[in-house]
Amino acid sequence: MSFKWIALSGGVGGAKLALGLAHELDPGDLLVVANTGDDFDHLGLRICPDLDTLMYTLAGCSNSTQGWGLEGETWACMEALGRLGGETWFRLGDRDLATHLYRSDRLRHGATLSQVTHELSSVLGVRHHIVPMSEARVATVVITDEGELSFQDYFVARQCAPRVRGVRFEGAENAHMCETLRLALEDDALRGVIICPSNPFLSVEPILAIPGVREALATIKAPIVAVSPIVGGQAIKGPTAKMMRELGMDVSPLGVTEFLRTTIDRIVIDLADSSLLPSIRNLGIEATSAPTVMRSLDDKRSLARAVLEFSGA
Amino acid sequence: MSFKWIALSGGVGGAKLALGLAHELDPGDLLVVANTGDDFDHLGLRICPDLDTLMYTLAGCSNSTQGWGLEGETWACMEALGRLGGETWFRLGDRDLATHLYRSDRLRHGATLSQVTHELSSVLGVRHHIVPMSEARVATVVITDEGELSFQDYFVARQCAPRVRGVRFEGAENAHMCETLRLALEDDALRGVIICPSNPFLSVEPILAIPGVREALATIKAPIVAVSPIVGGQAIKGPTAKMMRELGMDVSPLGVTEFLRTTIDRIVIDLADSSLLPSIRNLGIEATSAPTVMRSLDDKRSLARAVLEFSGA
Repeated sequence: MSFKWIALSGGVGGAKLALGLAHELDPGDLLVVANTGDDFDHLGLRICPDLDTLMYTLAGCSNSTQGWGLEGETWACMEALGRLGGETWFRLGDRDLATHLYRSDRLRHGATLSQVTHELSSVLGVRHHIVPMSEARVATVVITDEGELSFQDYFVARQCAPRVRGVRFEGAENAHMCETLRLALEDDALRGVIICPSNPFLSVEPILAIPGVREALATIKAPIVAVSPIVGGQAIKGPTAKMMRELGMDVSPLGVTEFLRTTIDRIVIDLADSSLLPSIRNLGIEATSAPTVMRSLDDKRSLARAVLEFSGA
Repeated sequence: MSFKWIALSGGVGGAKLALGLAHELDPGDLLVVANTGDDFDHLGLRICPDLDTLMYTLAGCSNSTQGWGLEGETWACMEALGRLGGETWFRLGDRDLATHLYRSDRLRHGATLSQVTHELSSVLGVRHHIVPMSEARVATVVITDEGELSFQDYFVARQCAPRVRGVRFEGAENAHMCETLRLALEDDALRGVIICPSNPFLSVEPILAIPGVREALATIKAPIVAVSPIVGGQAIKGPTAKMMRELGMDVSPLGVTEFLRTTIDRIVIDLADSSLLPSIRNLGIEATSAPTVMRSLDDKRSLARAVLEFSGA
């Protein structure tokens, strides 16, 4: 395996660009690395939201209306669990449950998360490689004015309501990056690393927090290109804008650039934010603008092409 | 709680009589004790086949055609799990899964199996008390000419094909009987113990193997009445007849009586086997015959009445 491109991604927003990239690049050329800081154990099942969103999106079976889960999903189990008085705050569809049952069972029997992801991806028909950032458990903890909350508590149960003061990644210090990622970062074939338009704190930072990732990114010759998840002062989806505000940051592609400036070489921002290009370039980061709001598959492919081009592909 | 009747039961056959008894007795008068020797962990879930069959049957939501699981069940999760290459030899319906998820989660959080069964029963609308024979894990192991097999391996995966040489109950020696059962056996209000028409080796024997159960049954004044699961040389359902044959026993209510004779005082056999009444009585066991094949609810209630009457109710 000799990947030319590595895409670091969180869930929905990142997965859209990952899908665009998958349409533009051969399976052997793209490695998609998923944030697993949101992973958690629920009802005895290992749930990996970003990995699954990436798998389902690249397999073409994700529920695009809902933004998560599977298309044409049914909810018989969750409804029955609700009647029994069980926990239903995290909605698991009947078919999605099969993914979690399969993965949890394989992990219990000693498989690594990479192996299981590969097995699931193959069966689902995903041709490109998706790997978790690490085989180890790393748990994103959101530090709020109401104390520390696990990511899912903050994100799903509390609907991002508490004010954020910071984020930490439990277990990151002892984690190793996924072997496939390590090899890809060492490979001379590498032509670029793409940071997908995902939440910088919740989706990108956990990957960067794995020992050796920042160091490797600082060493490689290939450019590191981010795509801003902030468009016109707002996040396309999720709590990114709210979190940036609460952390005293500029809610703009400039704020994103400032946050990522020690990691990235280049950034793609939305056309709507073109006026910020000079200020971003003043930070020493190459910048360009393109349509970054991805509704159709064409949007995703166009942005993927723009990013690849801007990376010198 | 002061129960007048205790019913010891396995799955389907036993549950039919338990339903009849539940229609004839007040909720405060009947304690149904389920065999849990068939329980096992599968896909990380605690599955309790006999407890569930009893709960679903008494709740009126069991699938009577299929003989197990829930009426109107759907199979979206199992089908998806099959596509993923997961284990589907033990069929779990979408709604049934909710029962296992709920129970497994509650057990992990420290609840006892009795507590969880009480919670599930309440929500499902079961008014009578159902308890497991023990809170501890006791696993029925079938000793066959192909070696030892776990119960589910023998019963579901191998479809009872291997020749049986014996049965043992792993963990029974250190198990305690369920506290509700212990108190009920000590209570002077007790008017009878009914051994439902379940497999003597696989469903009744595990309950009797819990330390103290045989001793308590030997001590109580109230009669112990069995209902033969063998009718006309055949079992209504399951491998009872095959097992009896393989163990060199007489496949008849007489064989059942011989097996249970140190435990029971009386037995109800089918009308079709009435000719065996004298031989059974010769063993020192009181015997009567009644229609024991339970198709309709009326059949179940009639047999329940016959058993209660024969016990001196």
